Parts: sequence; structure tokens; C-alpha cells
Amino acid sequence: MIDLYSWPTPNGWKISIALEELGLPYTLKPVNIGRGEQFTPDFLAISPNNRIPALVDHDPPGGGAPFASFETGAMLVYLAEKTGRLLPTDWRGRHTVLPWLMWQMGGLGPMLGQHGHFRLYAPEKIPYAIDRYERETRRLYGVLDGQLGRTGAYVAGDDYGIADIAIFPWTMTHKAQGLTLDDWPHIQRWYATVRAREAVQRGLAVGKDLRKAAGMDAETRKNLFGTPPAATQPGE
Amino acid sequence: MIDLYSWPTPNGWKISIALEELGLPYTLKPVNIGRGEQFTPDFLAISPNNRIPALVDHDPPGGGAPFASFETGAMLVYLAEKTGRLLPTDWRGRHTVLPWLMWQMGGLGPMLGQHGHFRLYAPEKIPYAIDRYERETRRLYGVLDGQLGRTGAYVAGDDYGIADIAIFPWTMTHKAQGLTLDDWPHIQRWYATVRAREAVQRGLAVGKDLRKAAGMDAETRKNLFGTPPAATQPGE
Repeated sequence: MIDLYSWPTPNGWKISIALEELGLPYTLKPVNIGRGEQFTPDFLAISPNNRIPALVDHDPPGGGAPFASFETGAMLVYLAEKTGRLLPTDWRGRHTVLPWLMWQMGGLGPMLGQHGHFRLYAPEKIPYAIDRYERETRRLYGVLDGQLGRTGAYVAGDDYGIADIAIFPWTMTHKAQGLTLDDWPHIQRWYATVRAREAVQRGLAVGKDLRKAAGMDAETRKNLFGTPPAATQPGE
Repeated sequence: MIDLYSWPTPNGWKISIALEELGLPYTLKPVNIGRGEQFTPDFLAISPNNRIPALVDHDPPGGGAPFASFETGAMLVYLAEKTGRLLPTDWRGRHTVLPWLMWQMGGLGPMLGQHGHFRLYAPEKIPYAIDRYERETRRLYGVLDGQLGRTGAYVAGDDYGIADIAIFPWTMTHKAQGLTLDDWPHIQRWYATVRAREAVQRGLAVGKDLRKAAGMDAETRKNLFGTPPAATQPGE
């Protein structure tokens, strides 16, 4: 059994979708990031970067003590290698997928996150920053669209896998980012295909009610965008 | 033989250091990012995200056609798996390293990059953005310091490997980021150990003269921070 420490966000959805795709049994352990639950010592012992999602696998490959993993890119590789699915096992296929997984981790995720912050959440509208991240977001969409045009199928080739699962939840934010998929026909085609998967829909539903109930108030705002507690300050 | 398409930057150094550590023969193919060489069709065929570094391995594992890889996280895993070094081959060791590699890819790299941009390169000083990324940079340094305090050795445990190689070049920017390692004693200890490695010094020297000769002028600034050419715009 796997414990999934998460909250319904694009990064959280990556792992709930992967678990649903793989049919692995898991228990959701909600971490209300609006209430600062990502800063508790128990959670930091699993996820030292105070970010959701994280997981604890009580039945890890090879046996032994429960195994904790954090950072969605690592968790996706972990789950794929545990099951032998969603990531090719031959080295060429595998290393065709990994650059796109890393592209999501290092580019699409962080940069769309910055765009969302300056566009929607920052208390002041800063044209330079909004423009910087909108341009980068559009550039990244262009790269993805080009790649999906070349493969004609999924991000890393003919097969659906962890690169698609990593990228898809972030493209779900396109309306909030002020974009329309009409500008990127290959993304639009791929998006509809992935969105229609039953496991994706189940993954997106995980914890949905929790988030709706939580809302966005001053404390949430502070926990998401304010100074974090001393636990993660320098010198710790 | 491996062709390394690169330029002396923190991301470029990751791979030149790894190649030096592994003793793999390689040829540097300089990509002058200040001159926009990352936007040429030949380079985009290898690195569709128009970023350095990238590599082409003419002697890939299992034989067959030359193999291209991009995104430093994927390239580090590729080189480690090609050689069986710098990443444990047992699953528990391996999956202890990967979260920290991903932490560098998704957190330390992008966020220090944003801090550097707003602190040093942006044409206007925007206090909100500088403060946002300085806080995040300090938080990330705190996370790294805490981890190095727990291991007492390298980032992911007793052994030096690709997580260290990914993280180290970014911590080299600490002075430019307005930080002193005196605030993070565990990072300071680790930094000195890694910095002293001969392979690290050889990796950092790769292409050094090229960068010095290139300088930072108006065209460089435009290629690094301005609107990219149409090749990477939406719809391509």
C-alpha cells in the first residue's frame, strides 16, 4: 500500500493520475497547503523541501523498510519502475522519455508557476514580470506543440507515459494563464486524448472536495506566497 | 565519442563535470548562446527546447544510431546509466538520489535563475520580484543545508554523484546572488569538498576562454532575455 501525501494542484494531480493509471492501491493523506501543513515535522521527514506531493511505499520493490519519495519527477520514475509501465524499459525508449519529463520539471512547471503567480496572485501587477513569464509560457507551449506535431501521438513518441502525465496537469491551467489551445493544434489534439482517459479523470477527482472547501483566504495566501516558517530558513 | 553542445554556464558545467568525472571522451561543440546559436535548425534538431547543453552519443549503449539527449537531468542519468557510475544501481540507492536531482531541476536551478535575472539582469529593479526570489533562494539553501547536515557527506548520502554534480554549479553563483556560504555551514563544508575535486576543476575550465571572449553586449542581452526568434513561437 502507498500513502499519497498530496493536495489537488497540478503537481498533486501528476501522481494521483499515475497511481490511477497503474491501478496501484493507495491512501490519500491530505496535506492542506493553505493551512501550512507542509511545514509540519512529520511531513518534512518525508518531503524535506516542504512541497506536495510525496509518497511512502509500504511495499517497496525488493522489500525492506517503507520507502519515501518526493519531487514528482522522481515519484513518476519510481512508480513506473516499480510496475514496469508508463516508461519504456529499453534504454533508447527510456532515454527518449526522460528529457521530456525533465523539460516539464525544469521548464514548463516552474515557468507556468511564475506566470500564474504574477498574473493572478501577486498583490501588485508588474508588467515586466507578467510579460517575461507570458513570453516564456508561450515559448514552452510552442516547443510542446512542435514536439507533438513531430510524434503525431504522445509527447515522447507513440506511447502514453510519464512525460504526458507530468505535462498534462500543467496544460490544464491554460485558461488561467490567458491562453487558448486553438493557437496550438497539436497540443489541442493531444490534450483532448489525454483528458478523455478514465484514469486521468479519476486522478483529477482525488481530493477535489477538500480544495473546494478550503478556499483562498488570508492565511492560505500567506502559507502559499508568504515567508515560510523558520523550519526552512537558513542554518537549519 | 560524445559531442557535447554547450557553453560555460551552470547548466553547461553540470555535463562537462560529469564527463570529466566519468573519463568519457568527448568533443566540445560550442553553442554561443549570446549569438543566438541555440536557435539554429541543426541545434534544435538535437535540443528542441533551444537550451544548452545537449549531447550526441555516437557510441550509445546497445549500439545503433547516434543518440541525442537534452535537459541536464536526463543527460546526467544517461551518462550515469551508460557507465554504471555516479548513481547507485540498486533501486533504493537510486531512488534516494533521484528526488534530489529533481529538486535541483525543478527548484534550485529555475528559482536561482529567476533571482539572478531580477537581481542582476532585468533593466528595471523590481523590489517585489527580487524579494520573492531572494526568499525562495534562501529557503532552498536552507533545505540543502539541512539535508547535508543529515547526511554528513554528500547530498544524497555517503557517495558523491549526479545530485551533487547537478547542484554544485548553481551554488557557485552564491556571490552573484548576494549570499555568503557562512550562513550555511553544511553547504560550506560540502562546497569546499566538491570544489577541490580535480574533475570538477577540469569541467569548469571547459570553454572558459570562449565566454570571456564573448562578453555581454546588446545582442547577447537580446538573445538571452529578449523575444526568441519565430522558430520557437506558438504554432511551430
